[in-house]
Amino acid sequence: MASHSSPPAFLFDLDGTLVDSVYQHVLAWREALEHTGMELSVWRIHRRIGMSGGLFVNALLREVGGDLSTVDSERLQALHAEAYKRLVSQVRPLPGARELLNALAEEEVPHAIATSGRLDTARLSLEMLGVSAELPVITRDQVRYAKPDPDLFLAAAERLGVPIERCVVVGDSIWDLLAAQRARALGVGLLSGGYGQEELERAGAYRVYQDPRDLLDHLDQMGVRRQRATGPCTYPGAGAGTE
Amino acid sequence: MASHSSPPAFLFDLDGTLVDSVYQHVLAWREALEHTGMELSVWRIHRRIGMSGGLFVNALLREVGGDLSTVDSERLQALHAEAYKRLVSQVRPLPGARELLNALAEEEVPHAIATSGRLDTARLSLEMLGVSAELPVITRDQVRYAKPDPDLFLAAAERLGVPIERCVVVGDSIWDLLAAQRARALGVGLLSGGYGQEELERAGAYRVYQDPRDLLDHLDQMGVRRQRATGPCTYPGAGAGTE
Repeated sequence: MASHSSPPAFLFDLDGTLVDSVYQHVLAWREALEHTGMELSVWRIHRRIGMSGGLFVNALLREVGGDLSTVDSERLQALHAEAYKRLVSQVRPLPGARELLNALAEEEVPHAIATSGRLDTARLSLEMLGVSAELPVITRDQVRYAKPDPDLFLAAAERLGVPIERCVVVGDSIWDLLAAQRARALGVGLLSGGYGQEELERAGAYRVYQDPRDLLDHLDQMGVRRQRATGPCTYPGAGAGTE
Repeated sequence: MASHSSPPAFLFDLDGTLVDSVYQHVLAWREALEHTGMELSVWRIHRRIGMSGGLFVNALLREVGGDLSTVDSERLQALHAEAYKRLVSQVRPLPGARELLNALAEEEVPHAIATSGRLDTARLSLEMLGVSAELPVITRDQVRYAKPDPDLFLAAAERLGVPIERCVVVGDSIWDLLAAQRARALGVGLLSGGYGQEELERAGAYRVYQDPRDLLDHLDQMGVRRQRATGPCTYPGAGAGTE
């Protein structure tokens, strides 16, 4: 029981959750897929973004009735990385992302990043966010199965030394929220990846916020009782309940 | 009463409805806005796409708390057009778009295009679709107010000589569906612009389909009784009701 009333730990997705990079990734996949002979509508790619590479390609092929055996997955990923790097100069941190991570660090709330992306492209986003080298980051390269399998979030919780039942998973895609359910974490959705609110709620979101800034303003709804905060989240008398 | 049982006419939005261009437009707006000093998350731009230029900028400024008087709307639109032209080589017709327009022409179902875009950029999409020069096209330049005002669709219906109550408005954004309601047309949503199904339903969609191909396969749900079709929509005995 203790784990459910303790203050939470946070496991963050990266693209669309902390960094405004989803649309660039979508168009980069569009370009890579066309290079390998797959014509796919952009919205279908958007709706699959955040899945593991293998499941992603599988799901896309299912939609066009294609044959997976003819797809060179390594080449596809290399083409995507190349196209994405051409667009990355347009990518920015999402509003409030740095402030949210800073606030959690100040409050000593454990947190980590768990992304379906590879370290190669994730590194660009991490630099942009200016995250501390001590922040645990789990990338696709480090687990067997990516989202909607729960492995990335389970590995991140383990790295923090926190039981997964105490964790809040924050993500912008339904794959984050499905993975959160499978891991038995609490899922929180952000609209900043371009999904609709209802899609995220139907995928099991406990709450849906607009972006990291909106989440920062509502940390109390996750059981974080801020002691050091200034601004709209200050609850001067509420600090005593913290661990 | 006759107008409600007569076969419908179709008024189509263009970007995201017939042409897979929404994400490129979104990133082009992102770039143009940043050039004029407005930092906006990409998903917020996506959610406003399809509005009239003026309302669009107003709505975005409301979200960032900016001042409209400092924005040079003409310059913004020129920057957008320039950025979009760099991305347009990536744009493709949506699956089934050409087949849908051809099927309507064959069945002599009146139809037109009504877009919030300017003729300048719309022309590129119309060429890509290979539409007949006789197809009526209403662009932003021709009406006073764009979506969600009903003017574009009212002008298109008038051009067809069909009462608006007999028209089906097909669009990918909630602004199309709101404009359809205001015009008293029947609104049909397509997921191909990247909005969620529930968003489109909540904006008043009578039905939501995946893309033009999916709509083509369900034209009977709009009261089109196809006589010349082959494939899943053939209803050999159903032709007698067509005007």
